[in-house]
Amino acid sequence: MLKVTFLGTSAAVPSAERAMPSIALKYDELFLFDCGEGCQRQMMRYGVGYGAVKAIFITHLHLDHFLGVFGLIETIRMNTERGSLIIFAPRGLTRILEAMSPTMNWKPSFLDIREMHEGELYRGRGYSISAFRVEHQGRPSFGLVFAEDDKNKFNEKKAKGLGLAGRMFKDIQKDGFVEVGGKKIKLEDVSWVRKGIKVVYSGDTGFDERIAEFAKDADLLIHEATFGEDLKEEAEKRGHTTAKGAARIAKKAGVEKLALTHISGRYKGGKELEKEAKEIFKNSFVVQDGDEVEVKPGKEEK
Amino acid sequence: MLKVTFLGTSAAVPSAERAMPSIALKYDELFLFDCGEGCQRQMMRYGVGYGAVKAIFITHLHLDHFLGVFGLIETIRMNTERGSLIIFAPRGLTRILEAMSPTMNWKPSFLDIREMHEGELYRGRGYSISAFRVEHQGRPSFGLVFAEDDKNKFNEKKAKGLGLAGRMFKDIQKDGFVEVGGKKIKLEDVSWVRKGIKVVYSGDTGFDERIAEFAKDADLLIHEATFGEDLKEEAEKRGHTTAKGAARIAKKAGVEKLALTHISGRYKGGKELEKEAKEIFKNSFVVQDGDEVEVKPGKEEK
Repeated sequence: MLKVTFLGTSAAVPSAERAMPSIALKYDELFLFDCGEGCQRQMMRYGVGYGAVKAIFITHLHLDHFLGVFGLIETIRMNTERGSLIIFAPRGLTRILEAMSPTMNWKPSFLDIREMHEGELYRGRGYSISAFRVEHQGRPSFGLVFAEDDKNKFNEKKAKGLGLAGRMFKDIQKDGFVEVGGKKIKLEDVSWVRKGIKVVYSGDTGFDERIAEFAKDADLLIHEATFGEDLKEEAEKRGHTTAKGAARIAKKAGVEKLALTHISGRYKGGKELEKEAKEIFKNSFVVQDGDEVEVKPGKEEK
Repeated sequence: MLKVTFLGTSAAVPSAERAMPSIALKYDELFLFDCGEGCQRQMMRYGVGYGAVKAIFITHLHLDHFLGVFGLIETIRMNTERGSLIIFAPRGLTRILEAMSPTMNWKPSFLDIREMHEGELYRGRGYSISAFRVEHQGRPSFGLVFAEDDKNKFNEKKAKGLGLAGRMFKDIQKDGFVEVGGKKIKLEDVSWVRKGIKVVYSGDTGFDERIAEFAKDADLLIHEATFGEDLKEEAEKRGHTTAKGAARIAKKAGVEKLALTHISGRYKGGKELEKEAKEIFKNSFVVQDGDEVEVKPGKEEK
């Protein structure tokens, strides 16, 4: 199971209710998608153990998406003994860290800064985190995909009924078939594919139908919805998406659920945005700071 | 009247309850003494209008005391139309801002960064803000003093009884005396001095009796009290003060009130620190995020 905790759900200007963008993903390890100012306190407030962060993925170098890394690094350094902390970010973060280092006590060796790029960024046991490009104010900007690998699962009853036994189970996985008593049995005859969990995050982006390709069949699409229909032009001008735009992506991608985040301060709870999105994609909801969404493995298909 | 709002009262590592160090002082203008991570949201939460900040004074360049300026600058820039924002800080902040500027949209002209130094930093109408040096981990570190000018106030009944009238009131202020019917009347015979409000902030510092000189007769001393008696050696080693140490400074300086802040996460509400301080200086209290203290002009003396 994957647990997503929305640590900060505001657009660039926070409010008393919404902190700067940060999303925690807890699987076997803890990951952060963006790390806005105050992220470490949000982790403390919502019971996400900050000391365990394995890697942080910064979608783009706008201040509201990365300022929190510095304080988090300091707190991790002071309070825990641990190995390296991986931070993926577009080029530019290292220079800031270098300028800041005389004021901090961190050793560069503690940090493993890597440049964000398209494609696979991190491989865990049976899952990957990868990035795709989005368009946002002409700045290198990325969306992120957490994806469990699909898994072949045997229908043991059927397999045994057809005579499979012992090492045949290994052979059929390796070769795609085995012969039992002169009869060829294919892997797909005795197994089904358990679809892996897939969670996709848009980062900051203008409306972009390509995102639907990356989000295809996701269990959860987390899409920015900075504005509503009242400020559609503003959204276009500033490289953001409206709630309806996000819903169009969700519908086209055929996702299970759509979480709307990065909400401009003018919408408060965001019920009007939720309503607009629901007109296009029913399973839409605006998230608030501290909201949790659990994503469970795909249904058994046979 | 001066209103002090404690926006963040933690030591270097924050908690769900305590944000990073920041203190707002509202007089005719709004000032910040330190500006830790999350300061802008604390200002929103506690009703301190962030758009009105006139100047920020960073006591030293430890991350927990200055990280909040970047987000605050961005929010002010995006949400308000205003003149320059003055930031006093030890050398080093400009280099960080320069490294960060490609990620922000701020124009350097918007900021008026000045190097922190001993002595008067800012002069307002009838008050000043000045700095004094403290010792903290061998790093340029300062304490701050907000001080209203003392004012001569006439005892009008007495002055008129002695025959003062019209422009004599101006002359006596200018020359220190006037002659009325051949008799010399001195300013001090017909007036009293209204002591100006004085609020002193220690910044981060090891125990240092010199601070009592700068805090002499203050209405409010805000002193760091990172540790209690249980960690006295830790305090010495790390350039911090215990609650009792702070109380000794308050007592020696003869201040009205002692506010203890910069509380290590291990003390939670800090009642044990308050108790220790009170043994030495009765009018001590540990502050929590959002606490306000109003400081009113000195009592009339005649």
